[in-house]
Amino acid sequence: MAKILIVNPNTTSSMTDTIAAAARGAAAPGTEIVDVTSPMGPASIEGFYDEALAVPGLIKALTHAHDADAAIIACFDDTGLDAARSIMDFPVVGICESALVTAGQIAKRIAIVTTLPRSIVPLEDLVRRYGFAERVRVSACNVAVLDLEKPGSGAAAKLDAEIALALDKGADAIVLGCAGMADLAAALSQKFGVPVIDGVAAAVKQAEALVGLKLRTSRRGAYAFPAVKQYSGMLKPFAPTQDA
Amino acid sequence: MAKILIVNPNTTSSMTDTIAAAARGAAAPGTEIVDVTSPMGPASIEGFYDEALAVPGLIKALTHAHDADAAIIACFDDTGLDAARSIMDFPVVGICESALVTAGQIAKRIAIVTTLPRSIVPLEDLVRRYGFAERVRVSACNVAVLDLEKPGSGAAAKLDAEIALALDKGADAIVLGCAGMADLAAALSQKFGVPVIDGVAAAVKQAEALVGLKLRTSRRGAYAFPAVKQYSGMLKPFAPTQDA
Amino acid sequence: MAKILIVNPNTTSSMTDTIAAAARGAAAPGTEIVDVTSPMGPASIEGFYDEALAVPGLIKALTHAHDADAAIIACFDDTGLDAARSIMDFPVVGICESALVTAGQIAKRIAIVTTLPRSIVPLEDLVRRYGFAERVRVSACNVAVLDLEKPGSGAAAKLDAEIALALDKGADAIVLGCAGMADLAAALSQKFGVPVIDGVAAAVKQAEALVGLKLRTSRRGAYAFPAVKQYSGMLKPFAPTQDA
Amino acid sequence: MAKILIVNPNTTSSMTDTIAAAARGAAAPGTEIVDVTSPMGPASIEGFYDEALAVPGLIKALTHAHDADAAIIACFDDTGLDAARSIMDFPVVGICESALVTAGQIAKRIAIVTTLPRSIVPLEDLVRRYGFAERVRVSACNVAVLDLEKPGSGAAAKLDAEIALALDKGADAIVLGCAGMADLAAALSQKFGVPVIDGVAAAVKQAEALVGLKLRTSRRGAYAFPAVKQYSGMLKPFAPTQDA
Amino acid sequence: MAKILIVNPNTTSSMTDTIAAAARGAAAPGTEIVDVTSPMGPASIEGFYDEALAVPGLIKALTHAHDADAAIIACFDDTGLDAARSIMDFPVVGICESALVTAGQIAKRIAIVTTLPRSIVPLEDLVRRYGFAERVRVSACNVAVLDLEKPGSGAAAKLDAEIALALDKGADAIVLGCAGMADLAAALSQKFGVPVIDGVAAAVKQAEALVGLKLRTSRRGAYAFPAVKQYSGMLKPFAPTQDA
Amino acid sequence: MAKILIVNPNTTSSMTDTIAAAARGAAAPGTEIVDVTSPMGPASIEGFYDEALAVPGLIKALTHAHDADAAIIACFDDTGLDAARSIMDFPVVGICESALVTAGQIAKRIAIVTTLPRSIVPLEDLVRRYGFAERVRVSACNVAVLDLEKPGSGAAAKLDAEIALALDKGADAIVLGCAGMADLAAALSQKFGVPVIDGVAAAVKQAEALVGLKLRTSRRGAYAFPAVKQYSGMLKPFAPTQDA
Repeated sequence: MAKILIVNPNTTSSMTDTIAAAARGAAAPGTEIVDVTSPMGPASIEGFYDEALAVPGLIKALTHAHDADAAIIACFDDTGLDAARSIMDFPVVGICESALVTAGQIAKRIAIVTTLPRSIVPLEDLVRRYGFAERVRVSACNVAVLDLEKPGSGAAAKLDAEIALALDKGADAIVLGCAGMADLAAALSQKFGVPVIDGVAAAVKQAEALVGLKLRTSRRGAYAFPAVKQYSGMLKPFAPTQDA
Repeated sequence: MAKILIVNPNTTSSMTDTIAAAARGAAAPGTEIVDVTSPMGPASIEGFYDEALAVPGLIKALTHAHDADAAIIACFDDTGLDAARSIMDFPVVGICESALVTAGQIAKRIAIVTTLPRSIVPLEDLVRRYGFAERVRVSACNVAVLDLEKPGSGAAAKLDAEIALALDKGADAIVLGCAGMADLAAALSQKFGVPVIDGVAAAVKQAEALVGLKLRTSRRGAYAFPAVKQYSGMLKPFAPTQDA
Repeated sequence: MAKILIVNPNTTSSMTDTIAAAARGAAAPGTEIVDVTSPMGPASIEGFYDEALAVPGLIKALTHAHDADAAIIACFDDTGLDAARSIMDFPVVGICESALVTAGQIAKRIAIVTTLPRSIVPLEDLVRRYGFAERVRVSACNVAVLDLEKPGSGAAAKLDAEIALALDKGADAIVLGCAGMADLAAALSQKFGVPVIDGVAAAVKQAEALVGLKLRTSRRGAYAFPAVKQYSGMLKPFAPTQDA
Repeated sequence: MAKILIVNPNTTSSMTDTIAAAARGAAAPGTEIVDVTSPMGPASIEGFYDEALAVPGLIKALTHAHDADAAIIACFDDTGLDAARSIMDFPVVGICESALVTAGQIAKRIAIVTTLPRSIVPLEDLVRRYGFAERVRVSACNVAVLDLEKPGSGAAAKLDAEIALALDKGADAIVLGCAGMADLAAALSQKFGVPVIDGVAAAVKQAEALVGLKLRTSRRGAYAFPAVKQYSGMLKPFAPTQDA
Repeated sequence: MAKILIVNPNTTSSMTDTIAAAARGAAAPGTEIVDVTSPMGPASIEGFYDEALAVPGLIKALTHAHDADAAIIACFDDTGLDAARSIMDFPVVGICESALVTAGQIAKRIAIVTTLPRSIVPLEDLVRRYGFAERVRVSACNVAVLDLEKPGSGAAAKLDAEIALALDKGADAIVLGCAGMADLAAALSQKFGVPVIDGVAAAVKQAEALVGLKLRTSRRGAYAFPAVKQYSGMLKPFAPTQDA
Repeated sequence: MAKILIVNPNTTSSMTDTIAAAARGAAAPGTEIVDVTSPMGPASIEGFYDEALAVPGLIKALTHAHDADAAIIACFDDTGLDAARSIMDFPVVGICESALVTAGQIAKRIAIVTTLPRSIVPLEDLVRRYGFAERVRVSACNVAVLDLEKPGSGAAAKLDAEIALALDKGADAIVLGCAGMADLAAALSQKFGVPVIDGVAAAVKQAEALVGLKLRTSRRGAYAFPAVKQYSGMLKPFAPTQDA
């Protein structure tokens, strides 16, 4: 029985509901999903600034369930993933990394379709860091994250058009580049006749895999636990290893 | 309930036993593991020639269980993986790719320790293809694959020494670079205090993940089903799509 | 006097005729060209599956002339090239590698025009392996290999259109991405006013070069002769080093 | 007359003094240096976790002088640099990027010598992002950041030894990989007879350059100003564009 | 007080006037700009051949002011930059490298717009060498260098059109890819609302930076002073280190 | 019958003798080798400065035999190769590029052993440009070019030691990184039991190949003939296209 904590680093709880439903839909019978919304930070994460400012809330949210077996950061920028891996006892997975390693096992050329153009460059950086630069094309459907939930926003049509373009440019599979799109994968796969990967579902399986393999983050090198040191100001309580 | 076929493309059945045991040890409660040894080809796969000659037997072995939900090719060269993905209805995973994507989520710098020096370059090519060139070091402990099973071969000491060297060179996690090492991961992780990833176990979890996500190999682009065409000579029966 | 064996790994003998004529047209006065068609495997090689299944027949064909000074594998995927280099006493060259190293000495930006879209990704992988990723664009004219020989197939017009597009995208030279196009290079070069490189002719010159330099495949590292080991099933006879 | 704000994102004010002195030593006659210590976050930044948690304090510190012409983030990880560029009206430079572009104009092979081993991988990622992967070697002298200031810590000897090793490995110039080393560059350059670049001084010149060229951060693409959106919790006040 | 020598390696003195004016416009109050036109070589540098033949004249021009504190080579190919760094006592900067490192601190995606198509590949090689391959797009407005100065040549309209296209393709900032465009940056930045970087101005600031930091070219490794050796023919006088 | 011009861009005629003998030793029966020493420039080319200053003399030397079918630039830096290709009617090959493409067809990992350490970085740049960065290691035996010819210089022992080290580091084949080593390849190959490639011999075969294939340098893109333009000073006579 695995207990997997899924954190929405966007401070919008309706988005957490979408994410949690997708996570539960993908979970194996023995997996319990605990969802939590970040207590502070941007309502939606779009670009470098939001991403950086979301991290403290995200780290705090990760302390929500100390008995979890693994955690998922449910923002497609994999915001704060390296920081989280450094500090948490359980393994932590990101939805972008999970989506890419999953897509990479069923397709050669992959398109990430994200929300706003300002996210393209950060995602391209991430794609390069994960070693997928030669296989992935990133584009944006020009829909704000929170508009994904609004019926009259035209978001669905814009996303469809961007997926069609990506396939035309040579993609074999589509990765949905925002946690807020988690409920759309099945229908889009049906419509376009190609695999459509939602990072939230993919991350649940990667988290289950790590738990099943009893693997934890290495404590050698870059993920060595941070030294116990003084933190000034209000950020102090977010640093779990300082508590001991 | 997932039925996962695991193929040993080395035609040595005692090696298949080791592999199957590791696979069953990693499988989730609802997963059935079906193991099969390639009916023809090299007794052990070491280098480019063995690798190429192992493919027809491997493809034949993959037709062993048409009702499988996914398959694993249990050779660390990921021999014939692209060919298998092109032709089989179910998703197919490789143990090298599975090990790397797993290791990559718990460590930044990874060492693959394989058997013979001649396998280093093929594995480096594979590592580059999977996008891990900047994070992975490949070395060999200079033990022939089939000697891994022989008690007096000194294989264990050589493997230990090579792992120690790899850690000294900066690795945060170890990937065992041969399916025949599948039974050693837990003890080595204990001994060296770092994550040690066995590709067979990792592949079981990646196969379960794809099955759980209901994802299949994309049929656009490079993995499009091969055209129905004439095959000359004895290779004809290995081409499943020709049967229809 | 060099004796060069050219193997068509496609099991279609009319294609071998085209290839052999191109090879003889390129050969130096003192070079003897011996052509052989693979005795088993796909009628035409298009994509990962055909490529892998063509290797055993190709290796068998390479044993056709033990007194050859060098051999050419006449399929643009350079199918089985590393395996052949590992096992044969004489040097072995591929037509893709030969075409690229030739084109690279007379042009900066090169376009490979191949047959079917499914071959684009395998060729892009090959191009990357040969170090030409930043200089080469691969595209397909959407003609099946065997249709290249059929007068009414419209193949010529499709190939012309794709070459024109490639030049428009910035190519300085064209590489014909299929052994079956070997007879078209001169006319296309005339028509488009740029160098058009046929891999078969290029490979003859590279083979002559290696013979002239008395160079043989290195036996250190990845091309070390395979260990003498047991091969199961029908593949056994293809392994020349086992015969001794 | 340029007014340049230099922020120490480590919350240790004695370190700020060292940094400010180095900055003033490098400043042109007409340049005013305003130094500020981050009001919250880790006492010293060492690794992914400290780096991420330092950003909110750093952003707050950047609002210290709204009339600045440019700002410097004085931590060698270039912590929060992209976030700062997205939100601040004036250009922002990092000391790692400044040091590398400076060193790159006087040397071909560069060694970064940083403090702790856990910083090597984050710095290697940064080096790759800045396009210096093929020219830079990163190593650590195994001294904690705050020990650099302690006379009896043996820090100087360890740093010397690591520089000597880096030169032996082929470096032509040394970059000091920590803002806390800012006062050591001149003496080390003298001792080792090679250029030794301190990122703080280099950043002052890059900031002066941008001010002199009247260049500001582009507002197209990834550095587009963040959308005005709701921020939850205590992080709200750090978002300058929300104030309007 | 810094004395900066700026060399126009094109032997067209009217172009030197444009360059010198741009340099003086960018210089800090205490900087003296000394301009010199190469005494021999091509009237304009366009492509590999002109570039190579311009070097001896350029090296000769660099000896024009032995008391200079730094020098700038004002051709966007950074012609002869490595040779100049090897031989001159003072640091030498190139306008392409200066423009890129400047642009890279205010934008993520950069477009270089140069003059003739034949310069695209040499500039792409340069961009790759400077580590900007993943961030820069190079295109040509198809205007000969010397036509930039001719009122009725339509050069301005062609340059405008190419900049507009580059922005449409995703650039966040524009780099003018020819020293002869040095007077256009301010107006183009105004017109297009993005940063437009002129390499000449950028190089003045980089030269001032190196002078301010008292940094000189490293004499270890590739920039080690050439050995004193015999030079045949007329090139002898260009080799300053031979004079001693 | 091919007439191949081989230019020694080092102005030392005894070195030309060694080069010409190696070229004639490698030439096919029908090939005539015409050798010429550059009329001006450095006695030996070692590093960036010599390399750049050697180009005008080299270009002049290339005009020595207008009826040549191809030419070879016999300096391992491939000095002036792109310039020569731009201006000469016949194809031009370099000895570094020729050696690498030859070695790459018989070995996976290659070591270049050159003369002086200052040449390592320029050669690494060249190796990267030719796409061999991942397969090649460059080192220097610390022998000046002209000392290769001096019996008592200890050059042979230093070269042997460096080759032994390179093999130990994983090379499968050796490339001699200086035209002055052209006479040593056969004996070294015998001594070390691996392929040893001399660039001069390899270049003769590549030149013969291009002549045999009737291929000439593309005139599209970067190798387009330079525009007819004014050249100032003494360099004018070296520009063949100006003569018309």
